[in-house]
Amino acid sequence: MSQEQLNPDKPETILTHSDHQEHVSSPQVASSFEGATSTLSRARSKLGLHPQHPVKYEDDEIHQMNLLWPRIRLVLREPFAEFFGTMIMILFGDGSVAQVLLSKNQASAPGGDGYGAYQSISWGWGLGVMLGIYVAGDSGAYLNPAITFSSCIYRKLPWRRFPIYFVAQVLGAFVGSGIVYANYLNAINNYEGHGIRTVPPSNTATAGIFCTYPQTFLTKPGQFFSEFIASTILMFVIFALKDDRNGLSKGSTNWFPLSLFFLIFGLGACFGFETGYAINLARDFGPRLMSYAVGYGPQVWSAGGYYFWIPMVAPFCGCAFGGFLYDFFIYTGPESPLNEPWLGFKHFFRIGTHQTTYEHDMKMRNGNHNV
Amino acid sequence: MSQEQLNPDKPETILTHSDHQEHVSSPQVASSFEGATSTLSRARSKLGLHPQHPVKYEDDEIHQMNLLWPRIRLVLREPFAEFFGTMIMILFGDGSVAQVLLSKNQASAPGGDGYGAYQSISWGWGLGVMLGIYVAGDSGAYLNPAITFSSCIYRKLPWRRFPIYFVAQVLGAFVGSGIVYANYLNAINNYEGHGIRTVPPSNTATAGIFCTYPQTFLTKPGQFFSEFIASTILMFVIFALKDDRNGLSKGSTNWFPLSLFFLIFGLGACFGFETGYAINLARDFGPRLMSYAVGYGPQVWSAGGYYFWIPMVAPFCGCAFGGFLYDFFIYTGPESPLNEPWLGFKHFFRIGTHQTTYEHDMKMRNGNHNV
Amino acid sequence: MSQEQLNPDKPETILTHSDHQEHVSSPQVASSFEGATSTLSRARSKLGLHPQHPVKYEDDEIHQMNLLWPRIRLVLREPFAEFFGTMIMILFGDGSVAQVLLSKNQASAPGGDGYGAYQSISWGWGLGVMLGIYVAGDSGAYLNPAITFSSCIYRKLPWRRFPIYFVAQVLGAFVGSGIVYANYLNAINNYEGHGIRTVPPSNTATAGIFCTYPQTFLTKPGQFFSEFIASTILMFVIFALKDDRNGLSKGSTNWFPLSLFFLIFGLGACFGFETGYAINLARDFGPRLMSYAVGYGPQVWSAGGYYFWIPMVAPFCGCAFGGFLYDFFIYTGPESPLNEPWLGFKHFFRIGTHQTTYEHDMKMRNGNHNV
Amino acid sequence: MSQEQLNPDKPETILTHSDHQEHVSSPQVASSFEGATSTLSRARSKLGLHPQHPVKYEDDEIHQMNLLWPRIRLVLREPFAEFFGTMIMILFGDGSVAQVLLSKNQASAPGGDGYGAYQSISWGWGLGVMLGIYVAGDSGAYLNPAITFSSCIYRKLPWRRFPIYFVAQVLGAFVGSGIVYANYLNAINNYEGHGIRTVPPSNTATAGIFCTYPQTFLTKPGQFFSEFIASTILMFVIFALKDDRNGLSKGSTNWFPLSLFFLIFGLGACFGFETGYAINLARDFGPRLMSYAVGYGPQVWSAGGYYFWIPMVAPFCGCAFGGFLYDFFIYTGPESPLNEPWLGFKHFFRIGTHQTTYEHDMKMRNGNHNV
Repeated sequence: MSQEQLNPDKPETILTHSDHQEHVSSPQVASSFEGATSTLSRARSKLGLHPQHPVKYEDDEIHQMNLLWPRIRLVLREPFAEFFGTMIMILFGDGSVAQVLLSKNQASAPGGDGYGAYQSISWGWGLGVMLGIYVAGDSGAYLNPAITFSSCIYRKLPWRRFPIYFVAQVLGAFVGSGIVYANYLNAINNYEGHGIRTVPPSNTATAGIFCTYPQTFLTKPGQFFSEFIASTILMFVIFALKDDRNGLSKGSTNWFPLSLFFLIFGLGACFGFETGYAINLARDFGPRLMSYAVGYGPQVWSAGGYYFWIPMVAPFCGCAFGGFLYDFFIYTGPESPLNEPWLGFKHFFRIGTHQTTYEHDMKMRNGNHNV
Repeated sequence: MSQEQLNPDKPETILTHSDHQEHVSSPQVASSFEGATSTLSRARSKLGLHPQHPVKYEDDEIHQMNLLWPRIRLVLREPFAEFFGTMIMILFGDGSVAQVLLSKNQASAPGGDGYGAYQSISWGWGLGVMLGIYVAGDSGAYLNPAITFSSCIYRKLPWRRFPIYFVAQVLGAFVGSGIVYANYLNAINNYEGHGIRTVPPSNTATAGIFCTYPQTFLTKPGQFFSEFIASTILMFVIFALKDDRNGLSKGSTNWFPLSLFFLIFGLGACFGFETGYAINLARDFGPRLMSYAVGYGPQVWSAGGYYFWIPMVAPFCGCAFGGFLYDFFIYTGPESPLNEPWLGFKHFFRIGTHQTTYEHDMKMRNGNHNV
Repeated sequence: MSQEQLNPDKPETILTHSDHQEHVSSPQVASSFEGATSTLSRARSKLGLHPQHPVKYEDDEIHQMNLLWPRIRLVLREPFAEFFGTMIMILFGDGSVAQVLLSKNQASAPGGDGYGAYQSISWGWGLGVMLGIYVAGDSGAYLNPAITFSSCIYRKLPWRRFPIYFVAQVLGAFVGSGIVYANYLNAINNYEGHGIRTVPPSNTATAGIFCTYPQTFLTKPGQFFSEFIASTILMFVIFALKDDRNGLSKGSTNWFPLSLFFLIFGLGACFGFETGYAINLARDFGPRLMSYAVGYGPQVWSAGGYYFWIPMVAPFCGCAFGGFLYDFFIYTGPESPLNEPWLGFKHFFRIGTHQTTYEHDMKMRNGNHNV
Repeated sequence: MSQEQLNPDKPETILTHSDHQEHVSSPQVASSFEGATSTLSRARSKLGLHPQHPVKYEDDEIHQMNLLWPRIRLVLREPFAEFFGTMIMILFGDGSVAQVLLSKNQASAPGGDGYGAYQSISWGWGLGVMLGIYVAGDSGAYLNPAITFSSCIYRKLPWRRFPIYFVAQVLGAFVGSGIVYANYLNAINNYEGHGIRTVPPSNTATAGIFCTYPQTFLTKPGQFFSEFIASTILMFVIFALKDDRNGLSKGSTNWFPLSLFFLIFGLGACFGFETGYAINLARDFGPRLMSYAVGYGPQVWSAGGYYFWIPMVAPFCGCAFGGFLYDFFIYTGPESPLNEPWLGFKHFFRIGTHQTTYEHDMKMRNGNHNV
């Protein structure tokens, strides 16, 4: 709970000319530029984003500020990034499940046993996240509401960011899974029968391509714990990888996407059996909604004893706990409320720090805001 | 459509002495050097290449400019690079399919089940592209006409480059697949029977080693869409990886080949089932021609309802669309026509920018021209 | 055998104000800070740790030194790091065995043949070690008592460090395997039968998820040699990777975790068949104790002819021998006793070097102490 | 054929004091140091090595020069490096074949189907080469006589180096495969029967663990071509990766070992079916000799129509051709004879360059001598 949540009505600082002084050298451009900038800032602020967009223009590119679409694009920079990053992640992730599941035992494949095995799925999700992070770049590349959530709690990402990131992530997953569905439409018809769509534990179920369904032997607590522990590990390791105060993570920014490949691959290979390692509301709910929309029926919600809410709730709990563990035992940075007097709760009573939201945001932007 | 296409008759600027001033220190060398340079520039310009070759000689290496073959090699620098890069890609890619397909279920292999599984093929194409990029280096390492095409549209690569790159890429793929055929000749005879060569859906078909054949259950639109969407993802992610204005891609030049390994692996593992992810005219048409030449018969063209044209056309459409998506929603660089007034169409009417082709080329060369 | 072992009673130098001079700028903070620092140093010294904690605070973070928990955390910095690093390693490692073993031949998995194959286990341990190293960062990221042991012998890590590192590593492995057990509780009940827990060579044994059991055809010397040779390779290659005097390892600090992924993957793929490549007392004994505690019975100790002591003893012998080989034939650094007169044995007789423990520690800390 | 081969009797320049001036600061050390240095230089020169060892001592480490073993170690620096690098490569490579072959179909393995599949072998050789390169570091990390050979032809590595590198590589492979044999002794007895050792095409053959045997359907030219083309690709790509004048290889020194992992993995996955991609006399002949020595019988030589000479000869032809291709079409560096007048043949007639061997060696050492 950071101070921003407590002052929802306080408008964020609007950028003035001086903030962009460095970018503008010719006086004739400065005037219209300044107007465009302040409109931009207001629009971004209303969406919950930082008033200043993260794009650095060279002098000769400033004309883009006068074009309609580039200006809209600057307003929506981070939501677009999260949308496409999550979409890419889902395209590869759901795509890998589709390919392995739909080509099962196909004898005409090279090698005579289908177009992939379970391990392809670990690859698909691992590299999907890796490439999604490259695509999302400027937004922080969260791709997961639970990670945004933990970053708000433990890394002072303003809570106002959460809603629009959330919407972008869920939409990206929805659209990504829709593209996978469209791409594999013929193959699904071939596998299940034309127009037949079923949900596990049906023998020919294809709903598992899009979202996760638990093993039948799992109890409810077992379902929850499996998602919880995977999410805990996810957040704990991500915080370690982003902690440039801790040993080998120093100066390893370029290594982050590759490390995430290994992390996600590992979660798939080591904790993917019981519940399919959703560990992400967007990854599970978006495609589940899509599969419901295209006709997989209400079983997408009722399967596994109305399992659908677990991959929505458990990742938030797990990531919050994983972040807590890392900050409690290892993290020494000032962003964490655990490293403040009263575990940061003094913010509820407005004692102490008077850092403005804008200053904080500038710091986050220039520092390691890409959690 | 860049301005170069509109002025096909305007000769490119010929290099003069001063362009190479820095390289030449001893006056006795300078004279013959200058002559060699201007011949070189003219020859390169005629081929559609940048007048200045991309090689940087040290002072004591300048004597190479007086040797016949090294001069020819400078003229053909980029075509050679594309030729060998594409050849390496095909050697590993087609080689991996050959090994998996021809050793199917072989009991004498270590492990008793052949020399690889479908996943080997994802490895083969992924690392083939990665190593091909290292080999091609100085040409931009496109290895794919559709990517050259998108770079012409969205990154101001002059259209004059396209033809000779195209020829080099297709020839490289043709020769590469021919080497794979020669290498596996005994094994193909052993698998199909001496002198028998068949095309899918034959049970012992080996034509699939060289080029792609679609699943039988696919409709025509399904065939097209599968190649289209894979090409879209290819281009979209490549533009993200090369975008040094976007988050983690900054300063990640060294990571590009490895990232491409993951991208191509992913396309193979997630979108390779239905049509075999050709996503590249050169990769599919070159080897298809080779397989026709060595006797696989006219079925290489007629199979799958004359499928052969789809991997020729769809990659161009897909890459153009993928590039459009990236530039429309994310890219802020000045090279993209989407970031110019009138979406760049003003170039048709010669309004505005007076940047010469040569200046542009110099900028491309020194900047991120390796898309 | 370093000099520290010979003077167990000599207290380590206690840090004074000047050691932290650089961190403290405002005089009002300095006083309480100094007190806190010296308490910290004494506490760390008693635990066998370096008196100075490895965290670098910025000026505005110094207030953490006055908070109780952050101070305790500084005292226990390295043990926490080893604990969590080892835990993460075991979570992925044991998790991968659990998933592959418990989902054997499951037809409802995508691909129809379970959730992974033996290779998943190489991935699990490889990436577990890689991510564990990132997590452990500041402690040196040994994660293995035998590697700590070799570092004491050959790299002048003070022997006083060994006990607390040992405890942290074994505890981390114990807790990690306990979490894996809790996570897969339902699945184990489903696989073995409710409440049934067996040890290899039982047909439904699940004890092999947690610790290693040897192949039945192995003789005792064969068991020992298999663990010995794998540990030798482990230490030999790690010393090569950390040797910044040797060719390509120079300036490759960032590559260390990834290289360890390949090293551990290789040990699993090439030397994992006979005894399961424990090569680590903590990795084997911690989880074995856990499995005994949760009811796998005394067979966890008696199986394989009381095999359990071999993965406890052989790694120390193997790592000591591997370190000897590397230092004898390749290493030229001054830390190795093999590069001193009398092979370093003169320290027993207190001849020569008078470097204090503290100075040595400072050097180790600032240099390549992360073996 | 470089000039060194033509003057075998000309002694290499002996290092004098001034060469090490920078290392020596205290005059009392300098005298004995100088003597030691010149003995060292003479010994190294006699072995065909560069007179100056590649180790850089700090001032306080110079005392090592007065210790017997460290001095011997300096004399044998590069041979030791090649020995251990090749040994590590073989340990992982042969180890992976052993594990996959000997555990075939074993039902008690996690997953129920042995401890690995063919792909493990690609991993084993790939990462074996990668880690072997890290170990060998200072020697240039050739690990393969054919690559040393090509480096002598095309990169001016003096031919005098070849013999001792050759001996070290073959010995390293011999010892490495012996360790694998010792480690898997029980398992081989279990697989073949106690004391029985057979060679392919026997059904229970285990000789294929150590060296390569061709598929039975291959003709003699097919055998040769398969090794030839794989060696050509090997050398061609290595020269591209080491060419710091070509695009993305610039500044990628740290990436070399990882790239070699992918290259070797690719050769195994794409060109390993027919003859097992020996592509290295040391890798094949050393272990073949070992297997003959431990009792696999004369069939290790006669199998496959006395196949054993092909992996001895073809790699030299292939690597020479691959190097030729790269230098002819792409390489612009001055080391290649193809970039000299008369294709470098003028050296036979002693025209032109008067660079001394020592100067050349210094250049090679400081530059990119690690081919």
